[in-house]
Amino acid sequence: MTLSLFDTDAPHGEASRLTAFSGNRLDRDAEHRTDQSLEDAMNRDGAHILAFAGNRLVLKQREAGLDPLFARHELPVLEPDPAKAVLLGFRQDGSPRIAMPVLTDPEQLALHFRLTDARSAFRDGLADEETLGEVAQGLSLIHWNDAHLFCGKCGTRSESKLGGYKRQCPACNHMMFPRTDPVVIMLTVDVASDLVLLGRGHHFAPGMYSTLAGFVEPGETIEDAVRRETFEESGIRIGRVRYHASQPWPMPHSLMIGCFAEALSSEISRDEQELQDCRWFTRAEVSTMLDADPAGAGPFAPPRGAIANRLTRDWLDWSR
Amino acid sequence: MTLSLFDTDAPHGEASRLTAFSGNRLDRDAEHRTDQSLEDAMNRDGAHILAFAGNRLVLKQREAGLDPLFARHELPVLEPDPAKAVLLGFRQDGSPRIAMPVLTDPEQLALHFRLTDARSAFRDGLADEETLGEVAQGLSLIHWNDAHLFCGKCGTRSESKLGGYKRQCPACNHMMFPRTDPVVIMLTVDVASDLVLLGRGHHFAPGMYSTLAGFVEPGETIEDAVRRETFEESGIRIGRVRYHASQPWPMPHSLMIGCFAEALSSEISRDEQELQDCRWFTRAEVSTMLDADPAGAGPFAPPRGAIANRLTRDWLDWSR
Repeated sequence: MTLSLFDTDAPHGEASRLTAFSGNRLDRDAEHRTDQSLEDAMNRDGAHILAFAGNRLVLKQREAGLDPLFARHELPVLEPDPAKAVLLGFRQDGSPRIAMPVLTDPEQLALHFRLTDARSAFRDGLADEETLGEVAQGLSLIHWNDAHLFCGKCGTRSESKLGGYKRQCPACNHMMFPRTDPVVIMLTVDVASDLVLLGRGHHFAPGMYSTLAGFVEPGETIEDAVRRETFEESGIRIGRVRYHASQPWPMPHSLMIGCFAEALSSEISRDEQELQDCRWFTRAEVSTMLDADPAGAGPFAPPRGAIANRLTRDWLDWSR
Repeated sequence: MTLSLFDTDAPHGEASRLTAFSGNRLDRDAEHRTDQSLEDAMNRDGAHILAFAGNRLVLKQREAGLDPLFARHELPVLEPDPAKAVLLGFRQDGSPRIAMPVLTDPEQLALHFRLTDARSAFRDGLADEETLGEVAQGLSLIHWNDAHLFCGKCGTRSESKLGGYKRQCPACNHMMFPRTDPVVIMLTVDVASDLVLLGRGHHFAPGMYSTLAGFVEPGETIEDAVRRETFEESGIRIGRVRYHASQPWPMPHSLMIGCFAEALSSEISRDEQELQDCRWFTRAEVSTMLDADPAGAGPFAPPRGAIANRLTRDWLDWSR
């Protein structure tokens, strides 16, 4: 049997869709953003706003549960900062979605609203998949704007343009565009021994093991980044690399590129600065880890929705 | 026949290796960069330097041909700017590779040396694949440093750290790291009709047609970016997406992510601002275009080494 170009033997049609923060379905209308787009959208019927206090999402307590969407008239109490707002796009019914930083002291806000970081919002199911995807987009863009308030070329205060999708220097005209940092995250597989390589960083919750990961550097292919990062952190040599899934990761604005990596060696030489532990796990161990209680003694895997969980689970399913 | 995890029916083992600028084999030793690394490397025997005048590479004319590598003693005539130099990494024999911006007026330089942009260097074969990969890394990092001379948070002049891989603000301690911009570039295939979608931007050489492309935005998966960009530029709806190859593209610091995209519709609605033309091509037409002389009447495809060429050529080969 020859597979056609779009057929695959992978256990899912599109694994990216099964990762957290991948549910964003907004029409971004990216090619037609203007300096007027944000104001127009703010004044449109049905405009709803996601409010952010620093890197935390603000949620209202309603009878039906927690609600992350604010109407315009509900904003003033939060002290919105419209000069740093971002137009995310439009829902299918045409209603605009806007991300708005707020200035009220988070301590004060916490008395009347609930504040949550993106990771907890997805782990605790505080918003549906589609809204979580919008939260990811909003957080990334607000963080990017906030880190580029001044021109990198001449130091002058920069101005927000195109609804938060560009910043421009009024002095030297230098233009800055939102950044997205590609990160490779890979499940290394020893095919002959049927083992996979997992490690734990020094800051991990006790008992958690995950796939290795690292930023793609300038001048590198995805495959070379997988090989370099795996070798630097574990001493394992990698041969073939297979892309599997991607995931937006808004801490602060990464694109996780999930791959399977073929181990060509087995002796681990751990980078002690990066990793507290790194070892090979059997299929049975991985299966147990995916179901293990994070409150238990471990080892356990990252939560469902994390791309590391997806890679690990799909490796188990693939060869069944 | 079931393919194992790392087997593929693609016509090459790793298509990324067949793209221009992907030949970088330096040991970056990324986990161990320090503020002292660059100076140590400069003083090491065998240190060789790539010199850049703005975004152009400086080449020496030698009897054996053009040479992009400078020894330290050859630099002074170019007026090097060591505060903006970058340590790229080490060759297999341990010799350091360094990227150095130079201050001499390019007009003056051109009298004694040859200057070339990265695109011409690869198209005209002015350096081997490995060196071209180092040039890509160097150009990207020099451009990034140059665009972050001032702190984005407070406007203070920033300082280069970790051999050019970090910039830090002495006033507020804000840290900035090199950026790499993920771009999706996709060959859209109408499987039933055996046609592919190609377009031409307003700035293309007359007669050239290429695959559509666009930046991945914050909060987007690779697959969603492929669908959004294709729809925005051509009006074609995309279903399945298959990753094929990646390529470092140093104009100024992109990561090209090459995919095949499955067309679900056939009627083109071109974005006139982005594209001067966009249409479906038959297998026979594409085959002719790949061999066509760019100096002729066209249509012709992008040159060998470009990821658009790779995607198109591999689509032809796949189903043979």
